[in-house]
Amino acid sequence: MSDAPVPSRPATAAETDPETLGWMKGFPPAPDNRVQFHDDSFRNFPELRWAWSNVRALVPTVNVWRGAGGASVLPRAERDIGGSQSITMDGRPMTFAEMCAETYADGIAVVHKGKLIHERYFGALKPHKPHIGMSVTKSFTGTLAAMLVAEGKIDPQAPVSDHVPELKDSAFGDARVHEVMDMTTGLKYTEVYTDQNSDVWSLRRANGMAPIPPDYQGATDIFALLCRQEKQGEHGRAFAYKTVNTDVLAFICRRASGMALSDLLAERIWAPMGAEEDAHYHVDRIGTESGGGGLSTTLRDLARFGETMRNHGYFNGRQIVPASVAAEIERGADPAKFKPAGYTTLPGGSYKSQWWITHNEHGAYMARGVYGQGLYIDPKAEMVIARYASHPVAGNAANDPVTLPAYMALAKQLIADG
Amino acid sequence: MSDAPVPSRPATAAETDPETLGWMKGFPPAPDNRVQFHDDSFRNFPELRWAWSNVRALVPTVNVWRGAGGASVLPRAERDIGGSQSITMDGRPMTFAEMCAETYADGIAVVHKGKLIHERYFGALKPHKPHIGMSVTKSFTGTLAAMLVAEGKIDPQAPVSDHVPELKDSAFGDARVHEVMDMTTGLKYTEVYTDQNSDVWSLRRANGMAPIPPDYQGATDIFALLCRQEKQGEHGRAFAYKTVNTDVLAFICRRASGMALSDLLAERIWAPMGAEEDAHYHVDRIGTESGGGGLSTTLRDLARFGETMRNHGYFNGRQIVPASVAAEIERGADPAKFKPAGYTTLPGGSYKSQWWITHNEHGAYMARGVYGQGLYIDPKAEMVIARYASHPVAGNAANDPVTLPAYMALAKQLIADG
Repeated sequence: MSDAPVPSRPATAAETDPETLGWMKGFPPAPDNRVQFHDDSFRNFPELRWAWSNVRALVPTVNVWRGAGGASVLPRAERDIGGSQSITMDGRPMTFAEMCAETYADGIAVVHKGKLIHERYFGALKPHKPHIGMSVTKSFTGTLAAMLVAEGKIDPQAPVSDHVPELKDSAFGDARVHEVMDMTTGLKYTEVYTDQNSDVWSLRRANGMAPIPPDYQGATDIFALLCRQEKQGEHGRAFAYKTVNTDVLAFICRRASGMALSDLLAERIWAPMGAEEDAHYHVDRIGTESGGGGLSTTLRDLARFGETMRNHGYFNGRQIVPASVAAEIERGADPAKFKPAGYTTLPGGSYKSQWWITHNEHGAYMARGVYGQGLYIDPKAEMVIARYASHPVAGNAANDPVTLPAYMALAKQLIADG
Repeated sequence: MSDAPVPSRPATAAETDPETLGWMKGFPPAPDNRVQFHDDSFRNFPELRWAWSNVRALVPTVNVWRGAGGASVLPRAERDIGGSQSITMDGRPMTFAEMCAETYADGIAVVHKGKLIHERYFGALKPHKPHIGMSVTKSFTGTLAAMLVAEGKIDPQAPVSDHVPELKDSAFGDARVHEVMDMTTGLKYTEVYTDQNSDVWSLRRANGMAPIPPDYQGATDIFALLCRQEKQGEHGRAFAYKTVNTDVLAFICRRASGMALSDLLAERIWAPMGAEEDAHYHVDRIGTESGGGGLSTTLRDLARFGETMRNHGYFNGRQIVPASVAAEIERGADPAKFKPAGYTTLPGGSYKSQWWITHNEHGAYMARGVYGQGLYIDPKAEMVIARYASHPVAGNAANDPVTLPAYMALAKQLIADG
């Protein structure tokens, strides 16, 4: 999620299609076609093009149960939008279909006025298979936390240590819950995917998404890592994107609800929403879900959640997320606190309860994850775009210049066409 | 599955209930309450009482998709059978409910004439949660193989190496497919759970169910282990229970169908049967399902499969398994080849296509797995019993003296009561 420079163009989506290349094909797959966890090869490009659609085959996971009821109806009304034209931030004309290929989409679903108008799968993704959402996960954690705040189970003004006393001596000891929710804590932790010494790799070893070397001295579970976090700067001053905040928030949710994050998501959102398939989180060595990046869902279920939020929390015939919670997220936070972070593709944006708010002319807001994951909600155009991808570059700076103009152009076309 | 002597009685089911003891409770669980994979502690008793209901949270897995259709109806007609009386093989009177507790049942479901008359959950199991079937898995592999034989895709008389040429120099090089299916191969491989030097532990390291030490020289995937198997004795002479046969059979199924075992099971059985939940296999480092012991299902879905077999392959309004395949399994194999193996609790039994045939007065046959897993099909009583457990002793010799008389007594009562 860093703003690191984009390297020169690697192999294209077509050239790295895992189906075409035969990744993990064959019984057993030939040595050259294997994508494996233990040697850390799975997160290389193009191996990750298979891996992000198959996280469960690589690491331990827990289910987010869809419940015993049936799936909610997501009515279809196919529209030919593949040719929708936009101009990228660097001035290149591009169709919607070209945007998908250029940004290594594994799947994209567009919902307009509650109807699925466009759904495409590429690479290793299938309609019934979950794909990892990476930090899209955070928006689920943030929404659950905001729901518990609305119920009075979490006090946003309380010190974090009121909910999780063990964090008293960490950087979070004097942080408030709302500062964790909106990521305005001052932390020494760094999140730079291109730097192997960045703290984000310690987090990934702790949360189960990177192998732990034999004599490793770092934290080997999420909670232990959180307890070790050190403060740097002041809390509450400015937005700084650091995943450990979300993992703290996930623990606050667990302690406040008495439930595992996976069960909380299932009970509050997944089952009421009528998800088609179970989702899953990858877990650390002691069963803790990665609340900051570990959720895998099907594309359509991600779209359902987007529709739930767009409809002010109402979906599948019931109020799933309180309307006040959805409205507060849509309204966003103070752009002045967001600006210093320097996200050049998101001018005037803000970050609220683990959602990215564009404050653009349509009031669009987003869930975003590394390697191109995203949920884009455009209230004015009554449009939701769910997108999973396996981009060679982690940071969204590699996607935004192409995807964001395409989304806005499509939104405007849909408004014009009615 | 060995006939090793049963040690003196460990703590009871009530004393080791994972819910009561708080295994993996808390966020995060306290150090004393953790069940972990990397240190191999998960397979100790009583940790395994939590682990067998939560395999997916410990190791990588692949889904067996239930399909987009709804679950098949399993009508309920609750009957009070908990007090059903039997006499154990060592002469103790016992009720059905006492049998469940004494054999550490995690769940038991009894279907009579197509109706679910009794369903109970204990320990860490829940109706919607899959529990590992251990070697119950084999009967699924064997049934799929027999289906492919019926379709002419597998030749039971062909050498194994016709289907899997890489096995030519292994013990399986001069074995026939039917010898692998019925486990009459002559192999050096040993399967003694109480002996840490037994080959079964090499298999478990290879198939992903035991941690691999840093400098391990053994096979680190299932296929590599199969290729290393050495012959001992003659093929075709006698039954000898060795899981590597099933893993070879699973590869024969994959090569003959062109499908992963998980996809084959989903397409041929799980979806047509109208399973309620996805099942899953644990996989090795290169994505190969453990066809010999890695399948986890819900209890009710296991019962559905039992009903499918009892109804000669017909269930959910369709012929799922060819009637000829079901009949051949029910008929069994030559008890003379089974007798030398010395299963004292199964006198006169046989082993056919990875199923255990009792040849008792009701013609009952079974899928069986270590630590007390089982699917018991009694054609005469029109009764199916699905059972998952977490017994402290691996071998079924610890269950059979109690469970088998209880099953027969219940069957006779159901016949008498009509």
